[in-house]
This record gives sequence, C-alpha cells and structure tokens, in this order.
Amino acid sequence: MPIYFEDISVGETETFGSYTVSRDEIVEFARQYDPQPFHVDGEAAAESPFGGLVASGWHTAAMTMRVLVDGFLERAATRGALGVDELRWYDPVRPGDTLSARTEVVATEPWSDAYGKVDVRVETHVDGEVVCSMVGLILFARREP
Amino acid sequence: MPIYFEDISVGETETFGSYTVSRDEIVEFARQYDPQPFHVDGEAAAESPFGGLVASGWHTAAMTMRVLVDGFLERAATRGALGVDELRWYDPVRPGDTLSARTEVVATEPWSDAYGKVDVRVETHVDGEVVCSMVGLILFARREP
Repeated sequence: MPIYFEDISVGETETFGSYTVSRDEIVEFARQYDPQPFHVDGEAAAESPFGGLVASGWHTAAMTMRVLVDGFLERAATRGALGVDELRWYDPVRPGDTLSARTEVVATEPWSDAYGKVDVRVETHVDGEVVCSMVGLILFARREP
Repeated sequence: MPIYFEDISVGETETFGSYTVSRDEIVEFARQYDPQPFHVDGEAAAESPFGGLVASGWHTAAMTMRVLVDGFLERAATRGALGVDELRWYDPVRPGDTLSARTEVVATEPWSDAYGKVDVRVETHVDGEVVCSMVGLILFARREP
C-alpha cells in the first residue's frame, strides 16, 4: 500500500542506506555533468584544496536521492518535489565512501485537493559525519482528495 | 587567466548553453539515481501526472551544472560551492529538450583571506521557459589573498 500524505507526521525520523561510491563512478558522473579538475583528474585534485579526488556535490545529492527512493519514495504516492531549500555540502564524498541518509519530517501542509506538501530535512552521512543536508519539498497524494 | 573573486560584480548577467538530452540519457540517469516510475518507465510515466517520461530533477540540475562548467566555471578559480538555496523545479525536462542557463550575480562577500563567496541566481531555460532555478553559493579564490 503506498504512503499517502495522511500517513506522514511532523517529527518522524528514519535512517536509510547504504550507497558505496567508487572512484570510477565519481569520475564518470563528473565527466558528464561537472568536469572540474578536482572531480575528474586525480593529479589536479591532489594539488587542489580538497587534497584528492572528490565527488561532485550534485553526485552526492543524486546518490542521496537513490538512498531515499530505495528507502521510501518508491513506496510513496508522490508526484515529485517542488524543489529543495538549503542544500549544503559540508565535506566532500571521496572514493570508497558509503553514504546513508537520515530524514526528519519538519512540516506538512495541504497543497491542493489532490496533494499535500511535506518538508523533509535530509542529512547525508558518511562514517557518522554529516557531509550534505537539504530540505526537500515533496508532494504526496492525499488518500481522500 | 582564471576568473577571481575580484572580477565578479553584482548585477552581471550571462547566458550559457546548450545541452540536449535524449530519452536514453534520462532513463540511464534515473535508473542509477532516481528510479521512480515516471523517470524510467515510459508506460507508467504516460499514466502519471506528468503524462510522459520526464527527467529527474537532479538530472536537470546536473545538466545545468554542465552548462555552467562549460560556460564559465572551468575558467574560474573556484573551490566548489557551499551549497544551493531555493532550488525549484517548475516544469519537467523531457526527451529531446535543449537546456540553456541564465546567470545573475546577486551578492558577493569576502569569506576568508583566500576566498570570496558569490551568490549566483541560475535559471535553466527550455524553449524560452524557466524550468528550474536556484541560487548557487560559490567560493571564488581572491586574486590577492
């Protein structure tokens, strides 16, 4: 049974994961979408402020999304998100890192006859540290429109 | 010569692009990072509120990033971004769409001895419509730390 707007309460927290990223995947994503030297070139990355190859922040966000889809969005009656607030990258993700995600429902409000908006704070964790966070603004279908 | 913090002024606007996305690329990205039915399954997408296959919002953001890297970030002395505010998806990107990006510098401030923070509003355009927008918080190296 899908997760509807009415099934979600402010304050709920959950933890999902995991996703382990390889050096090859970091380079492949960045060659296509973010070919800055510290994402695609190990030597240039070593001499950059990052001190080594790091994942694009967009790649970190995308991997976090995969964890959330596997964790609950694939069972949710959503029609996607309106957007994201306060996306922050605190520490870069590096080859071999394993990501997990912690979610907290911070607000819910009716959006239309058919949908409700749920604000979900998401933290991406690697080795117990928060490397990325954001607040997703997700539309969930209402069970009884 | 790279673009330094001192080279950037509030109010500057530019337009960059383009990036054309195929159906195969939409599905490939989504299978890896956002395998919700409306991103990976044409039949399910046709029956969804989107009425057809649409790109993951994270894919739209990543393609926008590629346009920005090709347009100016590859020449910029940056050390990445602190994050993004007010990321919004207004209309989905569909197979065959061509994206371009419009940037406007909305704020600059010194961040440390070595870096300055530049807030850049980015709009992603398809056929003259804004499909996505965000404010990137980018660290540029100072020419004279």
